[in-house]
Amino acid sequence: MRHLLSIDDLSLDQVHVLLDTAKELAHVTSGPNKKLPTLRGKTIVNLFFEDSTRTRLSFEAAAKKLSADVINFTAKGSSVSKGESLKDTAQTIEALGADLMVVRHHASGAPRILANSGWIQSQIVNAGDGTAGHPSQALLDAFTIAKRAHSGSYDFNGLNVAIVGDILHSRVARSNVSLLTKMGASVTLVAPATLMPLGAESWGARISYSLDEVISDSDVVMMLRVQSERMKNSFFPSEREYARDYGLGTSRLPQMKPEAIIMHPGPMNRGLEISGAAADSAASVVLDQVRNGVHMRMSILYTLLGGSLASVSTQSGEGGAK
Amino acid sequence: MRHLLSIDDLSLDQVHVLLDTAKELAHVTSGPNKKLPTLRGKTIVNLFFEDSTRTRLSFEAAAKKLSADVINFTAKGSSVSKGESLKDTAQTIEALGADLMVVRHHASGAPRILANSGWIQSQIVNAGDGTAGHPSQALLDAFTIAKRAHSGSYDFNGLNVAIVGDILHSRVARSNVSLLTKMGASVTLVAPATLMPLGAESWGARISYSLDEVISDSDVVMMLRVQSERMKNSFFPSEREYARDYGLGTSRLPQMKPEAIIMHPGPMNRGLEISGAAADSAASVVLDQVRNGVHMRMSILYTLLGGSLASVSTQSGEGGAK
Amino acid sequence: MRHLLSIDDLSLDQVHVLLDTAKELAHVTSGPNKKLPTLRGKTIVNLFFEDSTRTRLSFEAAAKKLSADVINFTAKGSSVSKGESLKDTAQTIEALGADLMVVRHHASGAPRILANSGWIQSQIVNAGDGTAGHPSQALLDAFTIAKRAHSGSYDFNGLNVAIVGDILHSRVARSNVSLLTKMGASVTLVAPATLMPLGAESWGARISYSLDEVISDSDVVMMLRVQSERMKNSFFPSEREYARDYGLGTSRLPQMKPEAIIMHPGPMNRGLEISGAAADSAASVVLDQVRNGVHMRMSILYTLLGGSLASVSTQSGEGGAK
Repeated sequence: MRHLLSIDDLSLDQVHVLLDTAKELAHVTSGPNKKLPTLRGKTIVNLFFEDSTRTRLSFEAAAKKLSADVINFTAKGSSVSKGESLKDTAQTIEALGADLMVVRHHASGAPRILANSGWIQSQIVNAGDGTAGHPSQALLDAFTIAKRAHSGSYDFNGLNVAIVGDILHSRVARSNVSLLTKMGASVTLVAPATLMPLGAESWGARISYSLDEVISDSDVVMMLRVQSERMKNSFFPSEREYARDYGLGTSRLPQMKPEAIIMHPGPMNRGLEISGAAADSAASVVLDQVRNGVHMRMSILYTLLGGSLASVSTQSGEGGAK
Repeated sequence: MRHLLSIDDLSLDQVHVLLDTAKELAHVTSGPNKKLPTLRGKTIVNLFFEDSTRTRLSFEAAAKKLSADVINFTAKGSSVSKGESLKDTAQTIEALGADLMVVRHHASGAPRILANSGWIQSQIVNAGDGTAGHPSQALLDAFTIAKRAHSGSYDFNGLNVAIVGDILHSRVARSNVSLLTKMGASVTLVAPATLMPLGAESWGARISYSLDEVISDSDVVMMLRVQSERMKNSFFPSEREYARDYGLGTSRLPQMKPEAIIMHPGPMNRGLEISGAAADSAASVVLDQVRNGVHMRMSILYTLLGGSLASVSTQSGEGGAK
Repeated sequence: MRHLLSIDDLSLDQVHVLLDTAKELAHVTSGPNKKLPTLRGKTIVNLFFEDSTRTRLSFEAAAKKLSADVINFTAKGSSVSKGESLKDTAQTIEALGADLMVVRHHASGAPRILANSGWIQSQIVNAGDGTAGHPSQALLDAFTIAKRAHSGSYDFNGLNVAIVGDILHSRVARSNVSLLTKMGASVTLVAPATLMPLGAESWGARISYSLDEVISDSDVVMMLRVQSERMKNSFFPSEREYARDYGLGTSRLPQMKPEAIIMHPGPMNRGLEISGAAADSAASVVLDQVRNGVHMRMSILYTLLGGSLASVSTQSGEGGAK
């Protein structure tokens, strides 16, 4: 594996390696001496053409736990705002010494262009591109589901996952449908018609326009953020109607299976797509997602930059207690 | 000590431990090899909901000298500006791996809410909350006074301190009154009536509306910044009148005791609350405050995260030469 | 050498030391373990009163490769924007623990004022001041020319260098004329009359208003960025005319000597001062400049903070293979 560009590029075996490595890295960094020297001397650049504090900090924390140097490049106020091309920016960042670039871009496909253009030799991790995908988010979500909803197994056959809300603007939904169906789950997309993308039928998921019809069968209820900041038009009559029809309100909680879990990629709009009670309930794994996110990003950086599972166990004084 | 939220929470013994530890850390990091490995593997997050470059850099320098990893989170352009709640932001930051959060917030009480709400387990250091307090500033000020005005003693009985200027908007004044009176000093607040908060009489300090009446008896003259950026209304007729009546102008310097010191938390408005001659005079300890600030913040981080004085001396090859 | 303020301050011997050290540091950090422990415990502050992501990141990468701690201070949103003076900002930064400050300022001469005022003891590196100079850029350019155009020799006699474009707003041009003529090169400044500064005749370079007259004799063609963001007036009739008369367009490439190289300090305006074909041609060393820039900045930091060439070779396990 040289780059992480899209879930579609990954074989099931590669997914399993990433999940195993995340699990092992979480284990060996849980003690008091929480850093590994693995990536000492490597420089990882967060190349963010779009703000995303939470994803950037997650990759930054992951890189530092592996002892890499981290350089943050944000397009605002930089040469990019002076009109520099993607090519020149990327080549310049590489020439400054980047071993791997974590790329967030508002244009779908930008990370793949960087990886395949021949412009640069750096390895690329897609940290979200337009509405196309967000593979590290899907991987951390699968890691979270395996830990909580499915007892550690990576075989998701028989697992019903509902992804609910603003599918239209969501790269998270696309990557999750791709990964979870690859792992065997049955995924249902739930949204009002205005927020369901054209052609969603072809993604490999079922389509529903009613949360109430889907919720009681779901083992995983993944609520999506209403991305008001991306909505140029009005996609629903009012926030109140949206919350009533597509929100995980307190009144809907009793319809859920007793063992079902609630997920959300954050940041949450409490009172809109999710009620405070749902966000804070025992079923919610929202903060597990954030914690697991650091471990999954460690796994991605570690795996791409040449580490193997065997050496994780060796580095830890605690052996390979998996 | 688990958190540092307010001076009022500290016993005199705890204050002395913090002062002793700052003194010892200043000593052991004064050599050519200026870093201690104490906090290696710890992650300290600067969680700043309000700009304060100087305080943030001071905590960042302190954390790095103790070999901690530092992650800076500023609310601007982050999920906070997308409407995320304080609770969700703090829980997310903690889940990213924070061991301790240094919190600056425009709302008085926000750090205490974070510490006591049960939302998170992280330790909290208040780096300034609304107009309520700024305990690390008061501690570094006391450290500075002990070193300069009072020959190293922590017993401030007999010491007269004047705090002069914009008391109304100053968290520094509140924390300093609390700490300095706890240590035995007599504090006088000096301000025009419009900048003296209602109820200031109950703080344990004397009140005066005339700098000229107070200055000649003061061992410490602490000038406060006129925070024009926080003033929605006009609190004084003109800058010229303010400087004349409440500024430490060159003409007032001869009224000071020969051994008295001049303090200012910075940034200074030269020509407004303090003249250039006063700021640069031998009596000024303004830059000592900045230097001591790094040592005091090292002491706070070190003490909260489990270090003890004995281990400071052990870590240094130079022994406990105090 | 205590500061690096201007090329004019450097003797030819000092230039050679900086070039030799850059070459050696490039060599010893080219292996898999790319960091040197040399500056561990030192704090380098990037004190930037003006945005310059690319220069800041280059110094940051250089400092980290030498294991220094880096603190970035940008004037925006800081005490500077609250009206703090240069003196107070610099003294505060020093008191926070800076060993060396890398200073970028919009006012010509600001770094020299900081170095000579007596305000601070820190060492100063000029990272660009107004239109006066950008010495580290000139040094990395000379390093690049030595490696590519002149077979490693530092004797530039017989070398023809054309510096083309917006000379008026360019600190890069001034520093390069100073350094390259000191090293023996013949430099010609090429610009429309509106972008040629008054008195340029006295710089020690030839003046030309025609790129076509100069290009075929040049061994080095250094194109300058059209700094539209600094231009308050209209300095040329249209971008199209500028590109035709002073741009390194595709049609001009055949006029160049076979071994001539193309340089640009970046960021490039492709299609304005340089065509895409020129920027990407085999003659272009634009990315070498960026790569060499990190090594030259390592050399500057290393040399100023007390390292010597002998110790570079010793630190490397590979000996002094120069």
